[in-house]
Amino acid sequence: MSRARHITVDGNEAVALVAHRCNEVIAIYPITPASPMGEHADLWSAQGRPNLWGTVPDVVEMQSEGGAAGAMHGALQAGALTTSFTASQGLLLKIPNMYKIAGELTPFVLHVAARTLATHALSIFGDHSDVMAARQCGFAMLCAGSVQEAHDMAMVAQAATYRTRVPFLHFFDGFRTSHEVQKIEVIPDEVMRHLLPDELLREHRDRALDPDRPVIRGTAQNPDTFFQAREAANIYYDRCAAEVEAVFEDFGNKTGRRYRTFDWVGHPEAERAIVLMGSGAEAAHVAVEDMVSAGERVGLVKVRLFRPFDGAALLAALPPSVRRIAVLDRTKEPGSIGEPLYQDVLTAVAEAAQAGRSPFAAAPVVVGGRYGLSSKEFTPGMVAGVFDELAAERPRPHFTVGIVDDVTHLSVPWQEVDEETDGVRAIFWGLGADGTVGANKNSIKIIGEGTDLHAQGYFVYDSKKSGAVTVSHLRFGPQPIRATCLVRNAGFVACHQWSFLDKYDVLEHAAPGAVFLVNSPYGPGEVWDRLPREVQQAVVDKGLRLWTIDAVTVAREAGMGNRINTVMQTCFFAISGVLPREEAIAAIKDSIKKTYGRRGEEVVRRNFKAVDAALDHLHEVAHPGAVTTDRGRPPLIAEESPDFLKRVTAVMPRQQGRSLPVSAFDRRDLALSSTRWKRRIALGVPVWSRTCASSATSAPSCARTRRSAHPGLRPAALDSGARENFL
Amino acid sequence: MSRARHITVDGNEAVALVAHRCNEVIAIYPITPASPMGEHADLWSAQGRPNLWGTVPDVVEMQSEGGAAGAMHGALQAGALTTSFTASQGLLLKIPNMYKIAGELTPFVLHVAARTLATHALSIFGDHSDVMAARQCGFAMLCAGSVQEAHDMAMVAQAATYRTRVPFLHFFDGFRTSHEVQKIEVIPDEVMRHLLPDELLREHRDRALDPDRPVIRGTAQNPDTFFQAREAANIYYDRCAAEVEAVFEDFGNKTGRRYRTFDWVGHPEAERAIVLMGSGAEAAHVAVEDMVSAGERVGLVKVRLFRPFDGAALLAALPPSVRRIAVLDRTKEPGSIGEPLYQDVLTAVAEAAQAGRSPFAAAPVVVGGRYGLSSKEFTPGMVAGVFDELAAERPRPHFTVGIVDDVTHLSVPWQEVDEETDGVRAIFWGLGADGTVGANKNSIKIIGEGTDLHAQGYFVYDSKKSGAVTVSHLRFGPQPIRATCLVRNAGFVACHQWSFLDKYDVLEHAAPGAVFLVNSPYGPGEVWDRLPREVQQAVVDKGLRLWTIDAVTVAREAGMGNRINTVMQTCFFAISGVLPREEAIAAIKDSIKKTYGRRGEEVVRRNFKAVDAALDHLHEVAHPGAVTTDRGRPPLIAEESPDFLKRVTAVMPRQQGRSLPVSAFDRRDLALSSTRWKRRIALGVPVWSRTCASSATSAPSCARTRRSAHPGLRPAALDSGARENFL
Repeated sequence: MSRARHITVDGNEAVALVAHRCNEVIAIYPITPASPMGEHADLWSAQGRPNLWGTVPDVVEMQSEGGAAGAMHGALQAGALTTSFTASQGLLLKIPNMYKIAGELTPFVLHVAARTLATHALSIFGDHSDVMAARQCGFAMLCAGSVQEAHDMAMVAQAATYRTRVPFLHFFDGFRTSHEVQKIEVIPDEVMRHLLPDELLREHRDRALDPDRPVIRGTAQNPDTFFQAREAANIYYDRCAAEVEAVFEDFGNKTGRRYRTFDWVGHPEAERAIVLMGSGAEAAHVAVEDMVSAGERVGLVKVRLFRPFDGAALLAALPPSVRRIAVLDRTKEPGSIGEPLYQDVLTAVAEAAQAGRSPFAAAPVVVGGRYGLSSKEFTPGMVAGVFDELAAERPRPHFTVGIVDDVTHLSVPWQEVDEETDGVRAIFWGLGADGTVGANKNSIKIIGEGTDLHAQGYFVYDSKKSGAVTVSHLRFGPQPIRATCLVRNAGFVACHQWSFLDKYDVLEHAAPGAVFLVNSPYGPGEVWDRLPREVQQAVVDKGLRLWTIDAVTVAREAGMGNRINTVMQTCFFAISGVLPREEAIAAIKDSIKKTYGRRGEEVVRRNFKAVDAALDHLHEVAHPGAVTTDRGRPPLIAEESPDFLKRVTAVMPRQQGRSLPVSAFDRRDLALSSTRWKRRIALGVPVWSRTCASSATSAPSCARTRRSAHPGLRPAALDSGARENFL
Repeated sequence: MSRARHITVDGNEAVALVAHRCNEVIAIYPITPASPMGEHADLWSAQGRPNLWGTVPDVVEMQSEGGAAGAMHGALQAGALTTSFTASQGLLLKIPNMYKIAGELTPFVLHVAARTLATHALSIFGDHSDVMAARQCGFAMLCAGSVQEAHDMAMVAQAATYRTRVPFLHFFDGFRTSHEVQKIEVIPDEVMRHLLPDELLREHRDRALDPDRPVIRGTAQNPDTFFQAREAANIYYDRCAAEVEAVFEDFGNKTGRRYRTFDWVGHPEAERAIVLMGSGAEAAHVAVEDMVSAGERVGLVKVRLFRPFDGAALLAALPPSVRRIAVLDRTKEPGSIGEPLYQDVLTAVAEAAQAGRSPFAAAPVVVGGRYGLSSKEFTPGMVAGVFDELAAERPRPHFTVGIVDDVTHLSVPWQEVDEETDGVRAIFWGLGADGTVGANKNSIKIIGEGTDLHAQGYFVYDSKKSGAVTVSHLRFGPQPIRATCLVRNAGFVACHQWSFLDKYDVLEHAAPGAVFLVNSPYGPGEVWDRLPREVQQAVVDKGLRLWTIDAVTVAREAGMGNRINTVMQTCFFAISGVLPREEAIAAIKDSIKKTYGRRGEEVVRRNFKAVDAALDHLHEVAHPGAVTTDRGRPPLIAEESPDFLKRVTAVMPRQQGRSLPVSAFDRRDLALSSTRWKRRIALGVPVWSRTCASSATSAPSCARTRRSAHPGLRPAALDSGARENFL
């Protein structure tokens, strides 16, 4: 087994590292959340970084994902080792070429940071609706559930595609995996070379269209022969799952990381099981371990190879004692009798029973649930809720989990459970582009690469991007971190923007006795009285330790303007004790040199100054232990606002949209004209003033428009209810 | 019930008639086999033909199917009654917008002439791979199996979409239904108006984006709310199937044509059942009626509403006595555990059993089969083959039918059965664009609209289009014609091109005692000896009556150049006796006036002359009743050709490609360099001569190229093995 090297990267980088190393042509077009894979590859090629065979991959950005698909297909026909990255609608535009690439049995890997498809609304976040829209193309589909797995499955897909001639779609959850930072073990070059034997690559080369070996491919076929030719592909698919198992075996022998097409986690005599794939399987892993420790006979199957779907391997993974199975799909297909993974599992169980090959003591009940659409939180508590449902006398055949469905009543109830693992859990409230995320990524690298601790960072971006709230969720600890969900009981909560205290419940997920660090324009003597009543109450109720720093002043005095990130990072290390203080300071400075060295001595010096000054300005606040103010958080909208605004629209800007039940959305459109109900922000109300160019034909609509127009009042602020689409 | 009006049209026109009548905006982009729908609509609007409300629909041709999808979506958001037509890759390009149209719950109908998606090869022909690629979008999917049904379902979809707000994809089989000509009953305007009540259309109008009623729609949503909002659509889908049933009921009351979401045909106590949708269900209908008459307890379910899939309605349609179910899918999804309709039926059966609601006396075995890919023939004989498989002790869980799979051995055996219905069955061998198809469509109209007989025409085009063989298959008879397959035992076979006798087995499907009419350059005394041995043998073996005419001379003498279609049509009527001869001649002349009247008196006169002369030149040939020649059909390729050419490549140009088994395609590419094996046609062999523009970098590949180049020999004929892609 090769000596392991560790790095701390997000899922996109973990995948790009493999893709860039194993290919010659990389055809790209950016789409959130897959773009960073292409950006990394582009940068590395621009820097002249070679692939495994010493040549620098050609990274070609096309005019659209459709163009990238054409470029891929063309490069493959020329015999190039080819890959691409995409997501969501970008994947949809590749589907026509994917049918052909698969039909022509072409080795190829497409990496997908799985993202929601736009339906009633666009979403940049993650679920499996995009990859499920491509499941019928004839691609093998391999799923990763964590950053390490994304790195590993990227490689397994590369190896398996040349062994099978079946193209592979490798996918992992958009944002939850693509943007989660974790410490991972890198696959050494010699293992990659071993998994890509020259003779297989030469076979691919030999299939290239070449005037010296003239063949015709991609013809038009007629009813006489098309069907027969299509069936001639069966043998390639029939042996694909076994080949993937063989690659897993080989990979495990070389790296020590062992996977199966379906992996079982849980009690060997489990009675209740869930089946799912992607990052949700990690949250379920946590829940199952807890429940098994508590004596429950439960378990889960992590689906790794979704296509070809090997029903026999799935059944072999499940203990024969299983009597109830909940299959969880991270997609929704309205009008279907059930979501795809559910139907596949049900089919595998039914086919085995029909064939008299059922491994189960008694025919299990199979039910299906939807979870996690558009990166909806999926937690161990929800997994327990699903197991509770399975324990019911008659489990619902179809359900949802993670929301409250007060309309069609499909949602199962659940209770959140606190994490009880060793280690640090921290939440940082920052403003998009204020440097908080960068500093946190830095902290993870310091801890992940400088210690034996495991490290995880996840960043809750708003799709409004820069200027919006960004909340960082960090975990450090001695055990591998599988909690693919937000931090719920944080021992450390930092609020980098004072104004957030008036808007958001920043202490909602502070654990009892946690540290609360606030960047405040007020001194340690004054800060308590300046906190809104709700914040004081939480500090008191939870027995929090309050720390404060005027980071803006520290940064400014160090010559760094408004860049408070280094200051706040220093405070985190100083208070949290995750590293010894001196060691932490040295590591921060080291990292500053690496990050800013190129920008010159002066920038580095200013950062050092900020670090040193931070500790002098950091104060623990002794507070009275009781609420001392009447001043509550100001309302976002006027009391007399219409019901829908109060009940729905105004909840979301508070970062409490997750509490809205399904019935909140029975009006499918959001009402406008809400600006006038907004509190003290808008200086004017924007109106649409149409210039009537022609008279005769447009007169009626002009008249209609004028009726509601107030010329002269200029647009002031954008209505926060009217959220912008810019993706 | 309204008084019925009959017309004789193909499926595309039958659908376009409804679509143009019921809409205001028709966004189109042409793709085979859906193009004629857009062409009809465009023509009718250009002619000023109004819709039901007296306005002429706007027909807008966009730059691609993606553009048409955007135009559709935009028009819908503006409140217009909107429709479109597409197929195959064109449908794929519409999928991104379809998710949004469905997500926004927008009434809309998309008509799809279902066509094969390009995989290992392109195909312009029909199967369900395209619509299955859109099954997850959230559209309702309604399937028609015949020209009449396509007309009817187009209307039912229009009615149901406004009742449910769920958009509908209405599909019917490309070519088999889109291009089959049948006599159908037209839905009267008053029925259409009744099915589209003003209040529902007004509701659609009221949901238009309008500055006077400002709402926001199509926003970006984040993890907080997307999932809940997505589940808010459930109630619309939950009631959709029942609403479609209500429309069927209403439609049936008005027209007398009754449909259900799942229709049962067969023995009320059937033990074996098949489930399928589309035109194949008509062939199955024929087989089931025959088998039930013969005392077999069999039946079939015609699936009309595929999405939302109403499992309870499916089970209600099946007799409780059913013990074996074969679900037939007209698509292939490599790597799936089963094709989609199969998995849906299996899920419905399993869910009912789990819930204790199974209607069956004993749990039925459900198996799945693929058929009819790329318009592969699907015949009553194949249906019987499937029922035989169901009667086996252990039916194969997955099978194919209609091909010989000698590799993965999935194909079930079948035997063709001859049709035994009353009426005329005729086959016409013509050259693409020689007028044969036009004349045959004409004959169908004459019979369909001038008599009480039912009439059907199907035309086997080669994708090489003009200049290639086109075989017309016509049926006339007193009963409705459900045989959605080629004519097998024709009472009349005409060969319009003498040279075909040397190439094709034109008499393969002549019934014993049939008429064989050949257009011959030889007189009645000479023609027999000029026939190749194989043709003489068939005439003798089957006891055929041989007729001949020198149609080219007749046409030329009538001043019509090479246009022999009117001459051959006249001969058909004269010999077949489907109408009394005088009546037929009058009808042909009447139809000539309608068709050519615009081109002037002279053209009509020439055609009349050809008709009159035809009868004078038509002769029955008294033949010796024994083979009199040694001259066989000349071989297509040299005896010493490579095995693959003889075994595979050369079979297809004989119109015998259907006989090739799966193993013929284990080499996925077709070998080139076949021209030199061709018989006596090519005057030279094309070679690729590459001009070496730059020296340094391209030298190695130039050298490689020159090795095989023979400069100076100019391209002569295209290799017939190198079939052109022009679609």
